[in-house]
Amino acid sequence: MNVTEQKPQESLQENLHQVQRLLHRHKLVEGLVHKQDMPKHELVETLVHRQNLTELQNKLAQLHPADVAHILEALPLEDRLTVWELVKTDSEGDILLEVSDAVRETLLATMDSDEIIAAAETLDADEIADLAQDLPREVVHELMDSLEEEEREQLQSALSYDEDQVGSVMDFEMVTIREDVTLEVVLRYLRRFDELPNHTDKLFVVDKDETLKGLLHLKTLLVSDPECMVNDVMATDVVTFYGTDDTGEAAQAFERYDLVSAPVIDSQHKLIGRLTVDMMVDVIREESESEVLNLAGLREEEDLFSSVWKSAQNRWPWLALNLCTAFLASRVIGAFEGTIAQIVALAALMPIVSGIGGNTGTQTSTLIIRSLALGQITSGTASRLIVKESGIALLNGVVWGSVLGVIAWLLYKKLSIGLLMMAAMALNLQVAALVGIMVPMTMHKLGRDPAFGSSVLLTATTDSMGFFIFLGLATLFLL
Amino acid sequence: MNVTEQKPQESLQENLHQVQRLLHRHKLVEGLVHKQDMPKHELVETLVHRQNLTELQNKLAQLHPADVAHILEALPLEDRLTVWELVKTDSEGDILLEVSDAVRETLLATMDSDEIIAAAETLDADEIADLAQDLPREVVHELMDSLEEEEREQLQSALSYDEDQVGSVMDFEMVTIREDVTLEVVLRYLRRFDELPNHTDKLFVVDKDETLKGLLHLKTLLVSDPECMVNDVMATDVVTFYGTDDTGEAAQAFERYDLVSAPVIDSQHKLIGRLTVDMMVDVIREESESEVLNLAGLREEEDLFSSVWKSAQNRWPWLALNLCTAFLASRVIGAFEGTIAQIVALAALMPIVSGIGGNTGTQTSTLIIRSLALGQITSGTASRLIVKESGIALLNGVVWGSVLGVIAWLLYKKLSIGLLMMAAMALNLQVAALVGIMVPMTMHKLGRDPAFGSSVLLTATTDSMGFFIFLGLATLFLL
Repeated sequence: MNVTEQKPQESLQENLHQVQRLLHRHKLVEGLVHKQDMPKHELVETLVHRQNLTELQNKLAQLHPADVAHILEALPLEDRLTVWELVKTDSEGDILLEVSDAVRETLLATMDSDEIIAAAETLDADEIADLAQDLPREVVHELMDSLEEEEREQLQSALSYDEDQVGSVMDFEMVTIREDVTLEVVLRYLRRFDELPNHTDKLFVVDKDETLKGLLHLKTLLVSDPECMVNDVMATDVVTFYGTDDTGEAAQAFERYDLVSAPVIDSQHKLIGRLTVDMMVDVIREESESEVLNLAGLREEEDLFSSVWKSAQNRWPWLALNLCTAFLASRVIGAFEGTIAQIVALAALMPIVSGIGGNTGTQTSTLIIRSLALGQITSGTASRLIVKESGIALLNGVVWGSVLGVIAWLLYKKLSIGLLMMAAMALNLQVAALVGIMVPMTMHKLGRDPAFGSSVLLTATTDSMGFFIFLGLATLFLL
Repeated sequence: MNVTEQKPQESLQENLHQVQRLLHRHKLVEGLVHKQDMPKHELVETLVHRQNLTELQNKLAQLHPADVAHILEALPLEDRLTVWELVKTDSEGDILLEVSDAVRETLLATMDSDEIIAAAETLDADEIADLAQDLPREVVHELMDSLEEEEREQLQSALSYDEDQVGSVMDFEMVTIREDVTLEVVLRYLRRFDELPNHTDKLFVVDKDETLKGLLHLKTLLVSDPECMVNDVMATDVVTFYGTDDTGEAAQAFERYDLVSAPVIDSQHKLIGRLTVDMMVDVIREESESEVLNLAGLREEEDLFSSVWKSAQNRWPWLALNLCTAFLASRVIGAFEGTIAQIVALAALMPIVSGIGGNTGTQTSTLIIRSLALGQITSGTASRLIVKESGIALLNGVVWGSVLGVIAWLLYKKLSIGLLMMAAMALNLQVAALVGIMVPMTMHKLGRDPAFGSSVLLTATTDSMGFFIFLGLATLFLL
């Protein structure tokens, strides 16, 4: 027997290109059918047409749902919907789970409630819960009614948690065993399953009230003597989570302790669900993506092919905010128009001072935000950080300020302008360092996400203060 | 038996605080010993002193290496080294693996080669390979000599790959079996192990030449009839990697197919190693961190408590680069000093045009960089993206340009200045959109990382072009 190897990245791009080729052929034929409406050819063309679509459909049926999701995300809307119609109903649910929120919206928009329910019925309760927020309210109710008692309870439980709580990403596929049996009994019990849930690396040992007593790792089960009792070999030193724990912190724990799965318990220590590493990887990826998107002021992930109007709305809040801060900085300059009128050189030099201030401030705040997220900053060490960042700002101010000062001196043949540049740089970098530390730390203390908003506040300050310091010093000493 | 629950995040902060308290007490006592050098008290104080350190040592011995690593990262240098000296030699290796590169450097600096070798000897070959780049050359050679034949070969193999290649993060802990035996034989074989490697979710089926024939999932092993043959139940549709594959792409595949472990093969299909999800999670985390750090122009992760001088060096290349682009923009303004001298209001308004240009350009390039990383942009769709982003820029330019134009008009009581603002905004946003698309796409085509460098090039262009367009239009039409 020969092993069929999948080379993930190659096949990913290749699949996409194959689908695009088939789509292209399909559209060519469709174009012909529309253009030359000759009855004689019709039959042939419909056949070719159908053949193309069948080929495409077969191709799609062979692919992993995650790969189909990738193709859908990379296709413009019309092509995406053509492909979506060809997807078999029984894999629609899995694909909906895999696509990005923005693309999921476009797919759901084409489905009526019966189709949505048919797709959702192939999913587990926890997976339906992930979709539920994007579904119309009536559909969720209809779905609830179509589920069995146990699944309905699980769905309700999953829906009762916030999006960033562990309960919203846990699943219910725990294999539980009792502690007072032998491993031989456990092995025989497992053989009665058709299949074990994905990511089963441990069995959950519970008593008759579902209270968690320990974990039996499959590794332990396999290497131990079958005559052993479960409670002799089970692990009792267990990393557990509550349904209300933060998903980001749970993901950090998975990372730190190299977990594959972990039990979720309630306040009475009853086992209510299970976290698995694949969901945690998604959490880590989503967190890092939203961090990068937030830094650029994008509210959410954008469908690459959404309309101009929709994309613009995604980007406007940030632009509006920046317009306000830019306007503020502009008014600071406006206040010194008299000074600029006398020494025009100032107008050319002032953006350097504000720009470099923004850069150094961003460096400081990026490091602080990161350390806050990792829990590395305690009240005892905060003051040391301020001293350190202040020191770096002083060093930078003196070094780069001098460089700039000398250049400005040579350029404008005036020593006073050189000295002004140096002093303004040194002062503005101090401001940038302080704001770069204080803004994220204050946000963190107030329980806000320090990453969001820090950068606007930071550049607003370094811009306005940069202009104010530079033009203010000029007004005081140069006029 | 009662289960000991670990609440990851709470205990993390609590551990840190406990260690800080013990360190504080230790330092108080040490201070006393130094200050009052009274022979009578000496004995008592040395006892108290020793007691504190013993307590600290016991605390540390109970902690997971990852938690000790976290504490070390959150402590200033002197405290960090006090704690490091108290760590037991047999866990030093694991802790060195867990700490960040910057902190690892400070720890290794205090160890002589014998200590380093003692710490490394507790590690596997693939783990030593991870450390090797930070170790002095002689120590690596000494280490090599101290290893057994097989481990030495593994270490050499791991060291032969680049840092971003799968071979550098694979491990060698594969459990291999033959295909022509029954599951009963496999189960008996596994019982001969003391312990299975972490993250063993599948066994690797190989022939006598180590050629990969398939995978036997533990899940399958546990639910199947022990009388079955391995080759009847093994999976032959296998996601495999080459040692030279990119780690980031491997991590994406782990994410897409929800893998826990996967085989690494050479060009002859021989099994040479194993990838596990914990390493892939690290890869994802590191990628996202370096993305955020790169956006702020930080070359690498920084030790929170490193010296001012060292931190400054980490930040200088970026500042120097930005100084150059700021200077360029400043010279553009300088070329129009005559215009500004006549209409001083221009000096106050020009930073708005350049600033908003930078913001919209960053939004565009962030989305493009992200889609490139996910392989969502193909040559067929690139032109659609240009049209779309251009459209958004036009919409933004007209809307926000008009808003600004009206404000400028009201502020300076001159319609011409209002019209100038609007035109300059519309034009500069077009420039921003084009640069925001073209720069990352060109970088990607040249095989460079589009995230790195895009932002400098982008703001350099939007700043200089923003000033040029605004002041150029003013010179043409307003003078």
